[in-house]
Amino acid sequence: MSDIAARLEEIVGPAHVLTGEAIGDDYTHDETLGATPTKPAHVVRPGSAEEVAAILVLAAETSTPVTARGSGSGLCGSAIPRSDGILVSFERMNQILEIDTVNHVAVVQPGVTLTELEEATAAVGLVYPVYPGELSASLGGNVNTNAGGMRAVKYGVTRNHVLGLQAALPTGEVIRTGGKFVKASTGYDLTQLIVGSEGTLALVTEAVLKLQPRMAEQATLLAPFPDLATVMGAVPKVVGSGLGPLILEYIDALTMGAITYTHDLQLGIPDEIKEKAQAFLVVMLENNSAARLAEDLEAAGELVTELGALDMYALPGGAARKLIEAREKAFFTAKGADADDIIDTVLPRSSLPEFFTKVLQVAQSNQTLVVGCGHAGDGNVHLAVFQKDPEVRHRVLHELFAAGMALGGAISGEHGIGREKKRHFLELEDPDKIELMRRVKHAFDPQGILNPGVLFD
Amino acid sequence: MSDIAARLEEIVGPAHVLTGEAIGDDYTHDETLGATPTKPAHVVRPGSAEEVAAILVLAAETSTPVTARGSGSGLCGSAIPRSDGILVSFERMNQILEIDTVNHVAVVQPGVTLTELEEATAAVGLVYPVYPGELSASLGGNVNTNAGGMRAVKYGVTRNHVLGLQAALPTGEVIRTGGKFVKASTGYDLTQLIVGSEGTLALVTEAVLKLQPRMAEQATLLAPFPDLATVMGAVPKVVGSGLGPLILEYIDALTMGAITYTHDLQLGIPDEIKEKAQAFLVVMLENNSAARLAEDLEAAGELVTELGALDMYALPGGAARKLIEAREKAFFTAKGADADDIIDTVLPRSSLPEFFTKVLQVAQSNQTLVVGCGHAGDGNVHLAVFQKDPEVRHRVLHELFAAGMALGGAISGEHGIGREKKRHFLELEDPDKIELMRRVKHAFDPQGILNPGVLFD
Repeated sequence: MSDIAARLEEIVGPAHVLTGEAIGDDYTHDETLGATPTKPAHVVRPGSAEEVAAILVLAAETSTPVTARGSGSGLCGSAIPRSDGILVSFERMNQILEIDTVNHVAVVQPGVTLTELEEATAAVGLVYPVYPGELSASLGGNVNTNAGGMRAVKYGVTRNHVLGLQAALPTGEVIRTGGKFVKASTGYDLTQLIVGSEGTLALVTEAVLKLQPRMAEQATLLAPFPDLATVMGAVPKVVGSGLGPLILEYIDALTMGAITYTHDLQLGIPDEIKEKAQAFLVVMLENNSAARLAEDLEAAGELVTELGALDMYALPGGAARKLIEAREKAFFTAKGADADDIIDTVLPRSSLPEFFTKVLQVAQSNQTLVVGCGHAGDGNVHLAVFQKDPEVRHRVLHELFAAGMALGGAISGEHGIGREKKRHFLELEDPDKIELMRRVKHAFDPQGILNPGVLFD
Repeated sequence: MSDIAARLEEIVGPAHVLTGEAIGDDYTHDETLGATPTKPAHVVRPGSAEEVAAILVLAAETSTPVTARGSGSGLCGSAIPRSDGILVSFERMNQILEIDTVNHVAVVQPGVTLTELEEATAAVGLVYPVYPGELSASLGGNVNTNAGGMRAVKYGVTRNHVLGLQAALPTGEVIRTGGKFVKASTGYDLTQLIVGSEGTLALVTEAVLKLQPRMAEQATLLAPFPDLATVMGAVPKVVGSGLGPLILEYIDALTMGAITYTHDLQLGIPDEIKEKAQAFLVVMLENNSAARLAEDLEAAGELVTELGALDMYALPGGAARKLIEAREKAFFTAKGADADDIIDTVLPRSSLPEFFTKVLQVAQSNQTLVVGCGHAGDGNVHLAVFQKDPEVRHRVLHELFAAGMALGGAISGEHGIGREKKRHFLELEDPDKIELMRRVKHAFDPQGILNPGVLFD
């Protein structure tokens, strides 16, 4: 047994340290397409913040890389360990410590899943409204990638719901940032700096999450459009209407075909409309009052018709839920269809039509199939790229990211950079910003033990 | 003329550099009670980000302290210059560069005031919903203090509306962070790190601000309560009701008396209720539909009555506006009444009743008058402290902050730390966090030229 394994056993107990053959395949990868699975030297499963801090002290002393893992559902490789490193799995730190119905917050350990939090909040009439596609994802992972999802158009993303953190620093201290309040101007916002840092600054051991009142009623409108440009023109008007849509998604015809076929979805769209529809807009509304919701649904229907929809369908609850679930699983549909990469570029929503023109050009000039769907309300575009040749694929992604950035966008809206988008990040991002981020990283992690190879080389 | 003055003139032109007698009193202070005005060696009024960066390069070369100034309405001394330093006044960089009605953002220079932004957004049916007390405040100042205000309970604070920045770094580069989108997971969130940093990390030269659809109708309910504890018990239930109040303020009887007297406000409350009322809750609602608003107002009235209100009054538009304006000006009312300090501690709203008990104890044991009002919905308490003896005053503040922190709070909810609350911050905050913040500061500003003496010694 290595010296490190022995010392890890002292910290967490022998039952919670794995080495060699005992390390299962799950620990070697996340859901990133095409990434190389890597077996870490050690897997450790701490039970407390103090144990996490002790692991970091040991790692610093021995210059051992440390990677954090929640549920392993990430899409950019930031939970893939190093072969010479320690993988810190938060599977034992999976308690909902508190659902506070006075302050409207949940206090959770990093291993809690979205499904678990959904059940606990539903029981008291509250909701954690951030809704990324994968509900088995852990809150620790969500915090570290600043997960987004379909409801961001109304409620914002993970960042907007993290009010405070407990975190173990690579220098060995355990700190608490923020708290059960929505505002503070008391020094630098370390909470917001750690959110989205992909395990490179600190290990999150607890999160204070803002909850919202849970609305009683939801309704969904599906509107086929003749083309994507008309959909994109409609989106800001729906947002600006004050109807406050919970979800505003676009789905292109190819993706719609794939997800309805895969999930055997019957949406009741006549064939003559299907033939003309090149893109679909999904509008979900919510309200505490069924009467108001019905009024709003009618107003939304009138609005999308004015804005060029070919028709509109109020989906019954079951069909709506199925469509949203199928849309959530679009990643797995793409994966099942053998997509080679997935990107989630974000850009100003006004630039979406121009971006889609660029996407078509990039796809054609590189003889690559690129299809997608995405969060039209917030400019976050999910594209599946089908291209086996890694060099051509890198060029396609590079050109797509460059096009998005030229239109005022950023490489990733919600998946993160990790290991897998890093080359693009370092090639395309302003070198002055990269340099500043490196210095911030050094301020937290002077020895560079936390997730080396993620974000930076 | 000093060498620095000559070089500043080269950068911005002779008309925009002031020294000695030419520096007016306005540049020597902000609105902090009891702070010592300080005349800087130089005032410079840049016209562009490039000029700001050149000023910083000069400052770094000559180890000259640099302080940024917007409208000078801050309450913690972070815009008070150093006598040996350069004050960068953003009065010329006061343009609204764009109101983008498709992406729902405003792009502003730091010198734009809240009043100017309000007018420009009203013209297109949008609103920048952050509403701190002082509408002459600049957006640059708001960004640097993470200004809050009364509407935070619905819309959040400045931080939640800053989507991107252009900023000049003390190392001389001009960077752009974020953009016209609500989500990104592309490296560290430099935007959120700079927001609230009180001019100690970078000089903000442009901000991309999120706008909301402007609601057509507003209505206000005033509810007198027998005591503060009953008000505080009612607050979470009003928030949790789903009515989505725009404003949820408490005003204690003394403060209510002072602001209604000072502003000659007639609220139509009968004397027998006034005598019993020890605290007031103000609930403002908004909606696009007058009919829905009327229904919601009725529901809110029923709710507060159930929750212990002595009575409730739907205030007509004029009276409501006057009350909110008077509440906004509570700081000036306190100042006019010769208050010696103002604090804006934030804590979990569930802890407010216990905190108020502590406040009473601290006030009595130190023979000090402490009165207040505040943002009940978000746990942000504004207290005016009347105590001439600086040593006793420091002790009172220290005890109040310590009590708030022990209940899970932070020293400042929205005013900031600056120079004037720094001693408390350094005495009470976790030293590990202070040390980490110092390292982050060093990552941005290795020579320590930006606002030395603010936040840290």
